Amino acid sequence: MGPFIETLTHRWRSSGSLLCVGLDPDADKLPPSLRTQRAPLLAFNRAIIDATAQWACAFKVQIAHYAAIGAERQLERTIAYIKRRYADTPVILDAKRGDIGATARMYAREAFERYQADAVTVNPYLGGDALAPFLEYADNGVFVLCRTSNPGSGEFQRLSSGGRTVAQHVAARAAGEWNGNRNVGLVVGATWPREIGAIRRLAGDLPLLIPGIGTQGGDLEAVLKNGLVAGGAGLIINISRGIIYAGAQDEDFAGAAGRAAQAWCGEINRHRGEAEAGR
Amino acid sequence: MGPFIETLTHRWRSSGSLLCVGLDPDADKLPPSLRTQRAPLLAFNRAIIDATAQWACAFKVQIAHYAAIGAERQLERTIAYIKRRYADTPVILDAKRGDIGATARMYAREAFERYQADAVTVNPYLGGDALAPFLEYADNGVFVLCRTSNPGSGEFQRLSSGGRTVAQHVAARAAGEWNGNRNVGLVVGATWPREIGAIRRLAGDLPLLIPGIGTQGGDLEAVLKNGLVAGGAGLIINISRGIIYAGAQDEDFAGAAGRAAQAWCGEINRHRGEAEAGR
Repeated sequence: MGPFIETLTHRWRSSGSLLCVGLDPDADKLPPSLRTQRAPLLAFNRAIIDATAQWACAFKVQIAHYAAIGAERQLERTIAYIKRRYADTPVILDAKRGDIGATARMYAREAFERYQADAVTVNPYLGGDALAPFLEYADNGVFVLCRTSNPGSGEFQRLSSGGRTVAQHVAARAAGEWNGNRNVGLVVGATWPREIGAIRRLAGDLPLLIPGIGTQGGDLEAVLKNGLVAGGAGLIINISRGIIYAGAQDEDFAGAAGRAAQAWCGEINRHRGEAEAGR
Repeated sequence: MGPFIETLTHRWRSSGSLLCVGLDPDADKLPPSLRTQRAPLLAFNRAIIDATAQWACAFKVQIAHYAAIGAERQLERTIAYIKRRYADTPVILDAKRGDIGATARMYAREAFERYQADAVTVNPYLGGDALAPFLEYADNGVFVLCRTSNPGSGEFQRLSSGGRTVAQHVAARAAGEWNGNRNVGLVVGATWPREIGAIRRLAGDLPLLIPGIGTQGGDLEAVLKNGLVAGGAGLIINISRGIIYAGAQDEDFAGAAGRAAQAWCGEINRHRGEAEAGR
C-alpha cells in the first residue's frame, strides 16, 4: 500500500472509526455568533474539527463551498489546522477535478501542493490518461468517482457495455492499471447499497469513500454488509450536514456536532459488528 | 435561443471569426519582463486580450492555471477586463465542474456570480440532475463535456450501450431534456474529426466548443466539414498555447499572439469557405 493508504489504515485502527466528517459549511447557515468574524468558515471549522476529531478516521473538505465566495484562504487554513493539530487524520479535498495534460497537472498541484491535501476526489469521464497527473503523486490518495449518490447518477454510470456498467468499468480500471502506486480509492454512494457489493468484488481492497448517509438517506446496514473488507475496514463513510449542522444555530453548535459524530461513529460500528459477525 | 447563445451568435457575425482564444497562462512560461510584476498573469492576459480580441468570437479562461497558485483574484480581474473592454465577446470559464445538489449550486455560483463568466464547462458523469443548477442560470451558457480531445478519452466516452457511445448519449441528452433554457453547448475534441459528424446530427444546432487544434494536432478541415451548421457557424474553435505562447519569450509577445490569432482566424475561415462551398 502507498503512504496515503498506510496513514488511512493506521487512523482506522487508532480511531476505531470509519466516520469521515465533511466540512462543507455554507456561510448562510453559520451560527449567528460567528457571522461577524473575519474568517467565519475557518472559525466554524476549527470548532467542529476539535469537537469531532476523536470520532473521525478522516476529514473531507468540499472546495466549492469556499470557491463560491472567494474563501480559498479559509480553506487553506482549515487544512493547515487539521495537519497541525490532528496530523494522523487524513484530509480529503473533495474537488471532483477532471481535465487533461497540463491542466490536470495544474489541478493536481492545486490539491496536493497549494492546499496540501492528503487525497483528492477526481472524475473519470476523461479517461485514465487524464488521471495520471494525480496518480503520479505517489504519497497522496486519489478517489475516483465511480457510482455517485444523487438520484440521477445512473444516467451514464449505469449504462451497460460488454456486460458491465460504466461504473463497474471504472472500478475495474481503478483496481488495475490506475493503481500502480497503490494510492487509488473509489467514491460510491450509500444510496445504491446493492451495487456496492459488485463494485467491492471488482475493486479488491481499495478504500471506498461513501457519501449519501444522513440527509440523503443511504442504507448504512447494507453499506457495511456489502462494502467492508477483511479486518472490518475499507470504508470511509462521510457525513457532512448531519454533523456540522446538528446544532448549527445554537451557542453549542460544536458540542452538538461532537455528539452527532460520536453517535454516527457508534451507529456505524454497531452495523460493522453485525456485518463482521455475519461473515 | 437563450441570451448566451444570442450573444455568441451576434459575436460570430460581428467578428467574422470562429476562433476562441484560450487564456491558460503558466506563470513559469511568462515573458521575463512580466515575471516581476505584482499580477503577472493579469498583465499577460490584458496584453494578449487587446492583441487578439478583434480575431476572437470568444475567450476561454482555464481556471486550474490560476487555482494552482492561488491567483483567483487575477482570474476575476481578467474576466472583468474582458467584460469592460470587449463586452460583446463572451467569456467561457473552463472549469469542467461536476457535483451534486447544494455543491453543484456552489459551483454554479462560483462560475456565474463570483467570476461573472458568460458560460462554464461542466462534466456529465454525475447525470443530468447534477447539471440542473448550472442550466437554471438561463442567461448563461453551459458547455457539457462530450468527447474530449485527449488520447485516452475513449476509455469511457466510446463505450457502446444500446447502439450509441456514451458520448453520443450525452449529446442526445444535451440537445433534448437539458436544453429547456436553450443554453446548452457541447465540448468535442478536434482530435476525433470523424465523430464530430455523428455528434452534430444528435446535437442539432447546439454550439460546439472544439479544443484540440494546434498543439494537440486536431484536423481543422474535418472539424469544419463535419461540425458547421447552416449559415456557417455553430463552432467555437479554441486555441490556447498556439496563440498565447506564439512569442512568449519575446518583448513583442502580444504582437506575436495577435498575428497568430489573425492567422488562425484566417485558416479557419479558409476551411469554412471550402466546407460551405462543398455543401
